[in-house]
Parts: sequence; structure tokens; C-alpha cells
Amino acid sequence: MSNVENKKAAIIGGGVIGGGWAARFLLNGWDVAVFDPDPQAERKIGEVIENARRSLPALYDRALPAEGKLTFHQDMKSAVSDAAWIQESVPEQLALKHKILAQIQEHAPTDCLIGSSTSGFKPSELQEGSSNPGQIMVAHPFNPVYLLPLIEVVPSSATDASVVEAGCETLRSVGLKPLVVRKEIDAHIADRLLEAVWREGLWLVHDEVATTEEIDDAIRFGFGLRWAQMGLFETYRIAGGEAGMEHFIGQFGPALKWPWTKLMDVPELTPELTARIAQQSDDQSGHMSIRALERLRDDNLVGMMRALKKSGSGAGGTINTHEASLPTASNLDDLPVTVDRQIPQSWTDYNGHMNEAHYVEVSAQASDRFMEMIGADADYIAAGSSYFTVENHVCYLEEIKVGDRITVTTQVIRGEGKKLHLFHRLTKADGAIAATIETLLLHVDLKTRRTSEPGSMVATNLGEIAKLHSGLPKPEQLGRAIG
Amino acid sequence: MSNVENKKAAIIGGGVIGGGWAARFLLNGWDVAVFDPDPQAERKIGEVIENARRSLPALYDRALPAEGKLTFHQDMKSAVSDAAWIQESVPEQLALKHKILAQIQEHAPTDCLIGSSTSGFKPSELQEGSSNPGQIMVAHPFNPVYLLPLIEVVPSSATDASVVEAGCETLRSVGLKPLVVRKEIDAHIADRLLEAVWREGLWLVHDEVATTEEIDDAIRFGFGLRWAQMGLFETYRIAGGEAGMEHFIGQFGPALKWPWTKLMDVPELTPELTARIAQQSDDQSGHMSIRALERLRDDNLVGMMRALKKSGSGAGGTINTHEASLPTASNLDDLPVTVDRQIPQSWTDYNGHMNEAHYVEVSAQASDRFMEMIGADADYIAAGSSYFTVENHVCYLEEIKVGDRITVTTQVIRGEGKKLHLFHRLTKADGAIAATIETLLLHVDLKTRRTSEPGSMVATNLGEIAKLHSGLPKPEQLGRAIG
Repeated sequence: MSNVENKKAAIIGGGVIGGGWAARFLLNGWDVAVFDPDPQAERKIGEVIENARRSLPALYDRALPAEGKLTFHQDMKSAVSDAAWIQESVPEQLALKHKILAQIQEHAPTDCLIGSSTSGFKPSELQEGSSNPGQIMVAHPFNPVYLLPLIEVVPSSATDASVVEAGCETLRSVGLKPLVVRKEIDAHIADRLLEAVWREGLWLVHDEVATTEEIDDAIRFGFGLRWAQMGLFETYRIAGGEAGMEHFIGQFGPALKWPWTKLMDVPELTPELTARIAQQSDDQSGHMSIRALERLRDDNLVGMMRALKKSGSGAGGTINTHEASLPTASNLDDLPVTVDRQIPQSWTDYNGHMNEAHYVEVSAQASDRFMEMIGADADYIAAGSSYFTVENHVCYLEEIKVGDRITVTTQVIRGEGKKLHLFHRLTKADGAIAATIETLLLHVDLKTRRTSEPGSMVATNLGEIAKLHSGLPKPEQLGRAIG
Repeated sequence: MSNVENKKAAIIGGGVIGGGWAARFLLNGWDVAVFDPDPQAERKIGEVIENARRSLPALYDRALPAEGKLTFHQDMKSAVSDAAWIQESVPEQLALKHKILAQIQEHAPTDCLIGSSTSGFKPSELQEGSSNPGQIMVAHPFNPVYLLPLIEVVPSSATDASVVEAGCETLRSVGLKPLVVRKEIDAHIADRLLEAVWREGLWLVHDEVATTEEIDDAIRFGFGLRWAQMGLFETYRIAGGEAGMEHFIGQFGPALKWPWTKLMDVPELTPELTARIAQQSDDQSGHMSIRALERLRDDNLVGMMRALKKSGSGAGGTINTHEASLPTASNLDDLPVTVDRQIPQSWTDYNGHMNEAHYVEVSAQASDRFMEMIGADADYIAAGSSYFTVENHVCYLEEIKVGDRITVTTQVIRGEGKKLHLFHRLTKADGAIAATIETLLLHVDLKTRRTSEPGSMVATNLGEIAKLHSGLPKPEQLGRAIG
């Protein structure tokens, strides 16, 4: 069936979804042939692929294969011939889909796989009137298709199990996560859940309870973060505690009879349904204790929220604001304290200690704080000047573990002209020096990207601290070379 | 009203939610007094606080204030006296909440704020029969309370606006994101959305369409990731493209009449409702173009999914699996290629180039790959031996920008006994060397954490490569010292 050796995909219907499919295949080394009568198709798909090029490879710590060849076709025949995978993404009208699927099957290899991006139609509906129905499946993606891994694969009774497996193998080979929907239903699984929230959300706007922004905030500052890593049931399993899912359902089951949604026709929580949910939850998560699940959840939440600090979106913005309100430390051993922090789990590695890169992350934070202290702050940088690090020498003296509190002091070795030569000491709570980082920075004009003299205020501030530190003993590790 | 200078909180009702509140206040420097008749309360709250200590501080790149004092009380009076914030988290029974709130108000300062963790009751319901109703608000948190920022603050008509503002100020001071719900409604906002999905999900299990695990997968591999950073409406605004929200609603509005959920009583999309949604969406996101929103979304998704690679949860697991299937590079200039990758946006900093720490992250990946090549792989490490980096010297020669493709070659300088002395060159696509990292690693027994001799296979493999490289010219930057 779908032969992963033959890497040609045909994309029928461009737009955001078709373009996402094109990008996903193309960036995974497939040749992609597009057929879309829209005269804007080439531009639209090009824009999606441009987005994909800057983000999809960034997921990986290895390079993706060389891009395949992208072609645009004026006729269905040349687009689909020799294709191993054909993806239909035309508008959500059954008659139109029937027409397009018939055109595809007229010219497509009989053993290729035809996926439909339909959000709502059942595969048996798509297959109506087809001479080769077993070739057609639902393969429903999620926008942006080039990043989100989920694909709902929905076969009908006319679809052979081997076809489904071959299709899933192809999807996995381009980095997707196929979820086989075992029972046909309108809107499959994910869109039923999405649609439930959409409908409830529309009521909230309709009834003037909340605005679109308030609804988005209610999601992204709270349960959206939980769902991104565990979903609904595993989250509730944790909420149930050691007593498990049956306990949770016993606790929150009564609310099903309360007017908490517009939908009041809810399933009755019979002992049989409760037991089924509990058993499925055990099958899903029973290999981990609640305590272990809590830690996994917390580590995931911390990791994702730390990622959101970068853009300041949602929870990341809340953390940035709170962080700015936290007190900064003062002096230690006549040196300014430039970092005072706890080590997150995400900074540790397979050796069970903080990874070498994060020593330099801490050192970079110390240099940033020192720059602030001499006036080379965000405004100064926005005005076009900054310091670039040109050389670092790191001595790793002691292991640092998750949860350790680390303090960094910064000594100026030389601070005049374009040169900023600093020496950072990372100290643990017990007073042991865990690492030293000798670092050389040069003052830079951000427009020319060349070295330049610092502004007079920065030069003066730096000079004062340099003078203050000039009498201090030279650090033992200063000027050290390896070997 | 609630005076943030007085940092004493009383937690009435422990458990997972009360414990989460206790941890949130405690770790932000507040004294916390707990009243809960459950003899297990101290143990249960202690477990929640233990979880919080390892995760909440990890969100920040600054230390939190010193922890407050935690006390457990046998009577309501001593728990609530002098408190600035009292949080009620007893079970979801209105009569019980009335009884407890009356006891609290009997002993509490009249100007303190009493928040209720209720998931469903309206504040006016909680205030029934109270002599000081304006003191009571809904302050509905989300589990884990010590990590998730969202708090739904729901006042009633009996609540003064100044009380709401003071309450929000207190909540923000412990890192929370208060969302003021302007119109009382059963289950507030977030739980209405959660409950809609819960009810639809229960139907899917009931009708044997999907298991709990399949439903969780349908969430966490797809829309859960979108929602964690933008929520529902802003995501759909992007899907609507440059044509905006009205276009999106026009496109997907018809599905509201289709049987995509069990809930079929949906609001009619009148021109007025459509215009209201479009206007609110403009107010919310209109300051950014669709293209800018797409990039923000993609950068957030990449950041969160890269964070999930660490645990392998959800999308992180899919990426790890796909990454392992990607081809690894071979030799370049007689040296093994140990890294071949693209630079993600999240690795760049305020100077518009790759931050210094990530040069070392790349170098660490190169050392990891080299260790694999000589047999010091995951199995070897699991068996109790590894290499630890003890010294690094980094020369930053050229800026690296987002999207740049980087190749690293690794030259063995010395590889015998416990010592592994490597020299990594980071090369850009144009052939320019962007950085060199001289690194010294020592072989370590992971049990004793002391240096040890490598296994014979590793020693042999390393010796062969060292011999091969012994004839190569010494790198210019070798043995370099700063200054």
C-alpha cells in the first residue's frame, strides 16, 4: 500500500490546511504536487511554507532531510499521478468533496492512499459512490498542520486494516501522531470537544457574561496549560488523588446534574460507566503513582510556562510581571550579587545534575544584570548599543542539583574602553563555589555590528566599579587555559 | 481593605486546593494559618507544599522571598485572627459553605477579604444570610494552585469595586492572574468550558467512540497546545486569516446546525452576535497582524513542544521519536559531524542573535554524540558510568541568527585514561566558523560521583579515534587563555 519509499504527495486544495500539509511533507523530504484552481494558491501556500521553514525544523535537535520539490499543476491528472499520498482539503461541502474525490480516483494510482482533511464528515459518507472506497480515509489535521502532531485517522468498514496501518506509518514518517478513530461519528473526536467549548463560549458572549478575550484568558492562564501536556482525564485522575478515578467521579459527578453548561442532556453516571472510566484510566496511567504523575505534570507545566516567558504570552506574561516585582539581592564579599535563583528540573540532564550549558545561562544572566547596573539596560540596548560576549572560560567545580539555590557574584577584572572583562563565581547555599566563569565582552554598535566605545554614562559607571574592584585579590582561575 | 503589608493568610479547608493556596502564599513570603478538622490535614498539605517547593520557584529567574511561617490551628478563631486574606476551600455543599463562612466572619477582621474556592456557586449565593456580605467573593483557583496563574474573581452586587481591586492586587502580589467575572453565573467562565468538554467526553466514553486515553490524546497532541498560549477565539482569528473573525464565523458558522456535539441548543449567529464577536476580537488582538499572530503562535508552540521533549509527554514524545528517525550526518574535513541542526527562535536573545549559553548547549550535544560514537551511550550511562565536563573554553567568532543551519565537527585532542579532551568547531552553512569550544571531560563513576577508568570497549573506541586524529593540525584556539 502507501509506500514510504515513494515520497510524492499530491495536495488537492490549498489554503491554510492544504498549505500546512504541503509544508509538512516538503520539509520532511517529500516531493509535493499541488492542484488548486485558486489563482492565489501559489502565493497562499508559499506563505504557509515560509512560516513552516522557520518553525518546524526548530522542534528538532537534528536537521530535517533536504526539502523535496514543490510543483503547482493546472490539471488533476499531472498532480496525482505517481503519488503515494493524496490529501484532499477542499471546502466542507459533501457534494464538492464527492466530485473532487471522483476526479482524484480517475487519475490516481489504485494503491495510493487518499486522505481527506474533513472536520466533520464520516469516511463512509466520503466513500459514497466511489468505485474504490477502501482507498479513501479521513486524515483530519489541526492548524498549524506543519507543527501540531495530531491527525485523526478515521477508516470506515470498507477500509482494510492494512491500509490504515500503512497510512499511519506514512503519517508517522513525517512526524505526525495518528489517532485512529475506531467508530465513525460526526466531527470525529477532537472537533466534538472543540465544538462543545465553541458552542458554550458563543453562549457566554451571547449572554454578555464574558468577552472573547476573557474567555481566552480563562483558558490559557488555567486549564489550557494542563491540557497541552496531559489532556482531560489524566488531569482529573491526579485531582482524584490516591483514591483514583472512581473517587474523583464520585466527588464531581453530582455537578453533572447542575446547570454548569447549556448542555443539560448528560450521560447518567451508572456504576457501569464509572467502572469503565476508572478501568480505562488505569489502563492509561496506572503504571505511574499519583505522586509521580503530579511531578510529571508540574515539570511539564514549569517547562511550558518557562517557554512562554520568552514571548510573554499568557502565563509567561504573568511570570515576567511577578518576577520583576521580586527583590534583587545586594552585595556579598564586597562583590555585587548578580544572580540569586533556584535551579529548575528542566536544566538537569541524564547525569542527574545541571547541564553544562545552563552554567553559561546563569553566567549570561549575571552579565545581563551587571550591564543593567552600569546603565547598559533595555533602554540603552533599544537605543542601539550593547555588549557581545566574545570569550568564556568555564571551570566546573561542583555538581549542581535540581532545586539548589545559586548565588552569583561578579568581579570586574577590567572595564575600560570597549572591553568588559568579568569574573563570575557561582556559589551554592552551603557556600561552596560550584563554578567560575571568566568572560570577555566587547561593546558593540547594534547597527553596524562592530565594536564601539560605550556611552559616557555607562563608561563612568563601569569605571567606578572597576576602580572599586581593582584592589581585590585576583581569582585563582583567572587567565586559565585548558590542559 | 486587604492590606498587602499584612502578609498573613488563613486557609480554611486543606486538601489539594487549600494546600495549593497555602503553598502559593507561603512561598511568596506570607505567614499561613491552616484550619482543617481532618486529622490528615497536616500531612496532606505538607505533600502539596513539597511539590510546590520543587516547582514554583523554578518558574522564575530570581529567588522568591524567604518562606513565611506555616501553622496549624485547632480552632477557627486563632486561625483567622489578624489575617489579611482568608480562603475557604471546603467541599462543594452550599449549606456547609454558609456554616463555615459564618464561623469565619464571627472571628475574622471586618476589613479582611474572604475568598471562596467554589467551582460553581455564585457569590450572591455564598453571601446569603451574611451580616457582612461585601467581604465575601469567589476566588476560584485551578489545580495545581501553586503553578497555574488563573484565579476567577467573582463579586456580587453587594461587593464594592474597591474591595475587588484590593483583592486582585493581593492575588497579583503572589503571582496570580485574577480574571474578574463581571456577571454572576453558575460555574463562572472556565468551568463552564471545562464542563462542556467533560460532558461531551463522557458521552464519547459512554457511546464507546473513544477511551479516556484516546480523548486525552485528541486534546494534548492538538488543540490543547494552541489553547495553552492563546485560547479559543484568538486561535480562530488566525484561522480566519487576513479576512478576520467575521470571515471565520461565516466559514464555520453553518457547523453550529450540524450534530457535532450532544448540545444542539446553540445560539443563532445573528449579524449582531457576529459583529459583537468580531469587534471583541479586534479589541483583543487587532493590534497585531494575522501574520504576526501566526509567528507568535508558532514560536510559542515550538517553545512549549521543545519543553515537552524533556519528559517526552504528549507532543514531546512524538518529536523525540521522529528525531530519532532522522539521518545523522557523517564526516567533514576528516572529522566526525556530531551536530547538524537549525537554530530555533527561542535560542536568540535581545541582541538579535543566538545567546552565548546555546553555543554551549550545541557543544554539549556534540559531546553527547561523540560519547555515543565511542560507546558511552544511554545503556552505558544507565549501567553507572559517564563523562562529566570539567572545563570549557568558548571563542565566539561570528553571530548566529535564528534559522541558521549549524554543523559541528569534533576533534579529539587527547583521549586516554580518564581524560577526554575535545575540540568542537561550529560551522555555518556558508562555511564560516562561528565558534570553537575546547572542552575537557573526565570519566566518572555515577555512584561515587568520582573519576574512574572507562570500560575497555569505550577506551578502545576512543583510542582508535584519538590515534586517527593525532596527525591533524592543532586548532589555532587550542590552550587559549582570556586576556
